[in-house]
Amino acid sequence: MAKKGMLIVLSGPSGSGKDTVISELLKKNSELKVSVSLTTRNKREGEIDGESYYFVSREYFQKKLDEGGFLESAEYGTNLYGTPKAPVDEMLAAGKNVILKIDVQGAEKIRALYPECVTVFILPPSSRVLESRLRGRASDDEEDIQRRLLIAKEEIRRCVEYTYVVVNDRLEDAVDDVLAIISSESHKTLRNKKIISEVINND
Amino acid sequence: MAKKGMLIVLSGPSGSGKDTVISELLKKNSELKVSVSLTTRNKREGEIDGESYYFVSREYFQKKLDEGGFLESAEYGTNLYGTPKAPVDEMLAAGKNVILKIDVQGAEKIRALYPECVTVFILPPSSRVLESRLRGRASDDEEDIQRRLLIAKEEIRRCVEYTYVVVNDRLEDAVDDVLAIISSESHKTLRNKKIISEVINND
Repeated sequence: MAKKGMLIVLSGPSGSGKDTVISELLKKNSELKVSVSLTTRNKREGEIDGESYYFVSREYFQKKLDEGGFLESAEYGTNLYGTPKAPVDEMLAAGKNVILKIDVQGAEKIRALYPECVTVFILPPSSRVLESRLRGRASDDEEDIQRRLLIAKEEIRRCVEYTYVVVNDRLEDAVDDVLAIISSESHKTLRNKKIISEVINND
Repeated sequence: MAKKGMLIVLSGPSGSGKDTVISELLKKNSELKVSVSLTTRNKREGEIDGESYYFVSREYFQKKLDEGGFLESAEYGTNLYGTPKAPVDEMLAAGKNVILKIDVQGAEKIRALYPECVTVFILPPSSRVLESRLRGRASDDEEDIQRRLLIAKEEIRRCVEYTYVVVNDRLEDAVDDVLAIISSESHKTLRNKKIISEVINND
């Protein structure tokens, strides 16, 4: 199939469950690929190099940055994070649909580079559930929880910049919702000019 | 659920199999409704009044037309066809998703009235399959078949006016494709402003 793949930008605040949604998406649809980011931060327990992130040195990251090798990159605290350009473009050219997990600032950059990308924002079902999910995972420092909650709400405000929102209440439903969005987008007339002209012209 | 329903405009040439797609859609998703048109033509064998069409007199049709009771209407040969406005608006207000089976001219009018409607065009898999489907059902008058084929191809050219195209090769796949489109459209950010503001504001 020579049809170009779709770039699916997926964002959501901490507590939206977007990581679990993505890993379930990959299980359910083996044709889907995910872009793995590079980071200079240390590997945490349970993380796998090349799956969670590519863990690289600051020098390597900087060299790649200087070469224009990233679609977007950002610094959080003292750590650098970036989305490598080449693998994404290769997967798209091979007709694969590629998921990009990215924050709202990164999504803005991607949208400018790939105007035809599909943007999906994962929402928690309510602000109460969001808070309880953040409490469940964070340290028990109340100030830290409140800070994370505030950041999450700021991010949610920007979900209006996305084409789709999916509420992650029941995980399985949220995964099916994203799969339906991907299927639906592949039927956009704009992405099927070739098929249409074949139906009109072939004999 | 107070959320307004979506209007799904479904078109496709004779031979695209759109009628079968619609009846399968209704079987698979009992929440979906279909708008039934009015016609002044005679009932054919196997047709059910209120399902295939509402079969009405020319006087009744004309009265309804004068009252502005149609979303769109058209004359084919000596027969009038029209989409009644009130039931569509009532179903949408009740939060139902409503399918409107309509030709390309009618779809143009509906799009002007309901700019947020979802438009789907059902394509035959190839021009060869289209021809064999038309031969399978039409009279064996070659001139008639060629005329119908020409009309179908003219209609297909206008599929670019629709947001989505679905190729009806395997019926079951085509039905699933339309269901994915409906699900996906219900997750458009623009249709979920209320949910978003609830997640941001509730406590």
